[in-house]
Amino acid sequence: MEKFNKISVGEGARSELHDLLSLTGAEISINALPAGASVPFVHSHKQNEEIYAVLSGEGYAVIDGENVVLKAGDWLRISPSAKRQFFASEKTAIKYICIQVKANSLEGYTMTDAIV
Amino acid sequence: MEKFNKISVGEGARSELHDLLSLTGAEISINALPAGASVPFVHSHKQNEEIYAVLSGEGYAVIDGENVVLKAGDWLRISPSAKRQFFASEKTAIKYICIQVKANSLEGYTMTDAIV
Repeated sequence: MEKFNKISVGEGARSELHDLLSLTGAEISINALPAGASVPFVHSHKQNEEIYAVLSGEGYAVIDGENVVLKAGDWLRISPSAKRQFFASEKTAIKYICIQVKANSLEGYTMTDAIV
Repeated sequence: MEKFNKISVGEGARSELHDLLSLTGAEISINALPAGASVPFVHSHKQNEEIYAVLSGEGYAVIDGENVVLKAGDWLRISPSAKRQFFASEKTAIKYICIQVKANSLEGYTMTDAIV
């Protein structure tokens, strides 16, 4: 494996980075929904925790039936088993990152994993 | 554990999300360097793959002595053992996300981990 990989992500409905960056600890997607649109299905996960970051715009997620309002700057962790679906607001598009990682996989981090 | 957690991240030099979001598979930080500034040390990792996303501005990373130019929209994966240091450009601040995950921890993802 290369010691690093770099890509530039432009506009588009969805970019998936796992293969483009040779990721081994996460899958990351960059997603855009136009105003009034939604991901067309509800889903949950077997093993993976998901972390969402809203880059721009507004929308909401429905998580196990609960409505969670989302705007730029918001970050959201969702446990694997929760049923989720994402929506842009009626008037504004939304752009967001979704990070999938295996739940409970992180051991040390920052000062307990770094070598300075 | 709650089925989900949400926070809003505002301005600041660094926000660390692990504890704020009860993350179990990643640590995520949001970082800002003013023009001409740098992270004041070189570091590598024992186990963790790092993935960087540039949210705005310009800068560069030095990875094992190699200069890697960075601008908004760029994504970068770095293997645990590579020595890295991040810099804003001389004229422009940079804002970026850093995602730490345990290398080789991801098993299934997307369609092989999702339940639709």
